[in-house]
Amino acid sequence: MKVLRWHGARDLRVSEVPAAVNRDNEVLVQVAYCGICGSDLHEYQDGPHAIPCGSVHPVSGEQAPLTLGHEFCGQVVAVGDHVRGVQVGDRVAIEPEYRCQECRYCLAGDYNLCESMGFIGLMGNGGMAEQVAVPDYMLNPLPDSVSYRQAAVLEPAAVAEHALNQSSLQPGGRCLVIGLGPIGLLLIMLARLRGIQEICAVDVSPERLEKARQLGATSVLDGRQDDLHALLQQLSAGGFDTVFEAAGSQATFTTALQAAKKGGEVVLVGLMGEISLDAFDLVNREIRLQTSVGYRDVYPALINHIAEGRFDPAQIVTKTVDLDNALSGGFDALLASKDQIKVLINPNPSLTEQEYPLHV
Amino acid sequence: MKVLRWHGARDLRVSEVPAAVNRDNEVLVQVAYCGICGSDLHEYQDGPHAIPCGSVHPVSGEQAPLTLGHEFCGQVVAVGDHVRGVQVGDRVAIEPEYRCQECRYCLAGDYNLCESMGFIGLMGNGGMAEQVAVPDYMLNPLPDSVSYRQAAVLEPAAVAEHALNQSSLQPGGRCLVIGLGPIGLLLIMLARLRGIQEICAVDVSPERLEKARQLGATSVLDGRQDDLHALLQQLSAGGFDTVFEAAGSQATFTTALQAAKKGGEVVLVGLMGEISLDAFDLVNREIRLQTSVGYRDVYPALINHIAEGRFDPAQIVTKTVDLDNALSGGFDALLASKDQIKVLINPNPSLTEQEYPLHV
Ligand SMILES: [Zn+2]
Ligand SMILES: [Zn+2]
Repeated sequence: MKVLRWHGARDLRVSEVPAAVNRDNEVLVQVAYCGICGSDLHEYQDGPHAIPCGSVHPVSGEQAPLTLGHEFCGQVVAVGDHVRGVQVGDRVAIEPEYRCQECRYCLAGDYNLCESMGFIGLMGNGGMAEQVAVPDYMLNPLPDSVSYRQAAVLEPAAVAEHALNQSSLQPGGRCLVIGLGPIGLLLIMLARLRGIQEICAVDVSPERLEKARQLGATSVLDGRQDDLHALLQQLSAGGFDTVFEAAGSQATFTTALQAAKKGGEVVLVGLMGEISLDAFDLVNREIRLQTSVGYRDVYPALINHIAEGRFDPAQIVTKTVDLDNALSGGFDALLASKDQIKVLINPNPSLTEQEYPLHV
Repeated sequence: MKVLRWHGARDLRVSEVPAAVNRDNEVLVQVAYCGICGSDLHEYQDGPHAIPCGSVHPVSGEQAPLTLGHEFCGQVVAVGDHVRGVQVGDRVAIEPEYRCQECRYCLAGDYNLCESMGFIGLMGNGGMAEQVAVPDYMLNPLPDSVSYRQAAVLEPAAVAEHALNQSSLQPGGRCLVIGLGPIGLLLIMLARLRGIQEICAVDVSPERLEKARQLGATSVLDGRQDDLHALLQQLSAGGFDTVFEAAGSQATFTTALQAAKKGGEVVLVGLMGEISLDAFDLVNREIRLQTSVGYRDVYPALINHIAEGRFDPAQIVTKTVDLDNALSGGFDALLASKDQIKVLINPNPSLTEQEYPLHV
């Protein structure tokens, strides 16, 4: 079968490898769609960052060269001997976090904090492939009313939903989203769904701001304005309950802290390196700095929201490409321009041709 | 009456000023004890930091030269025309936070976040005086079973109690307290009172570590050890639920972050300036950085704990001095040595001579 493999920075190759279920708890999934994530771009540009090189990941048992892709869904085509409750032909979305299933965090159900934390598609062979072997605990069955195109965006939606769960935002509250990549846009949709009354969005791209407005932002602001801080204070009548920092820079982080009300919070979603902050101000205004990594226990509710028509994450999909064109039409296109938001790779076009026309 | 006034850095003077109730909502309190706080020392050493100079504080209407002291208690000797429910002779503890009573935070009951936040004794004339005029909302009546000596330590105890309220620490949990000043020691006592099972304390002073053990710490560690990080990991079986950072330096803050478990939290109690942190690690381990400033709604419960014998904050009092000796015997003694933990000024020795011998 055909796969898209990371061999090194700027070195992604389409190769032929055997497809197989290697362990008794795995299923083989025929991939319908696999999204390209910012972390995939990051590995492509100047990796390895998370990809194991030279020694295998403790849970996946795999290392580079490695098939990328952790935002995927598809159809079950083979089932390992110990797998129960899943059958060939089932439509499934993959929740790509590995679980060692024995550390204190896994045992407590906080599997996003697993001591051997990793993602299929970053620490083990993933979904940018015609087929991929997946541990059974990653599978989430899809009802017929959820299209593959929607299911492929479940993973970034789960990141956004977990960030909302980590926040203390309540219906009627006021939030700010800084940074309108896929996560920022999904945060807006999901905040709207929870009854958050005021959702302000900040980015430097007019197109992204327009998209945010379409998806439910109640106000949008260009982040390059000189008087941004004053405008945010005015818009929020003195500060937001919750600010989601989804841009990941020192400057946006400082803006986020300033924009929170006294007693409010900043939720860090974007990954950053070393940052500095004014702890005197943070303490004096009793600001909480919350963080969010991955997700846990959110797929079923999100699938239900989609199935019942309340939430359509496919609204952020801007393009689909096949495996052979994934590098130029996907990775390079995303790096070249902000016009592309979420690009899906479609390794088995025959599988999605039958897709419910409503959603395509 | 005699007062101890801040005129400038290193310039505290005992002066004679008139005693009076100036506003209808004020009462005049004969001061029994007034504690010397780290922030008083800070103003003495190189202030002004919080003291208004050149323009008055919006709520107190006062400015330097200013009588220090916000940790005090005493007896009511005069009552303003609009004051209800308080009588001459009442024994009271003062909760020294000003409230404008009209900002969004005051109206929501979050008066520690008042937009005109300030403390009597820092932003208005305080308790290092024979008598002090106090707004009625600051008064907390003292039952006979609470001594003045205990009541004088209610204010730092309130800081510690609010920090515990801001944390998500639950009975049976595991916490670390870094920095064993009065707040750190009171955190240990109050954590113990809430049923926290493991309380580890870190400081660089062997005397403070010994004191921490007496007050309820289940383990103590010298902060200067090279393998501190490894020892903390071992002691906590991989990380603490909550770490209280009550030392206020970049080094102790970094230790605090490292010592928290995945999904755990660091509560900043000590005031610091600019700090830096590894946001990548913070997010990946899903650590929450909580802050705590002042207190709200904690005096009644604390007074009750003392009255019923469960909590004795006077255990951290190491010395009492009269007003004339407050500078050399109090301020200078605290700056000279870690032997002194909490020094109380006793402006009216006759008031505390009658004190319940049990507690003295
Ligand atoms: Zn685990
Ligand atoms: Zn106020």
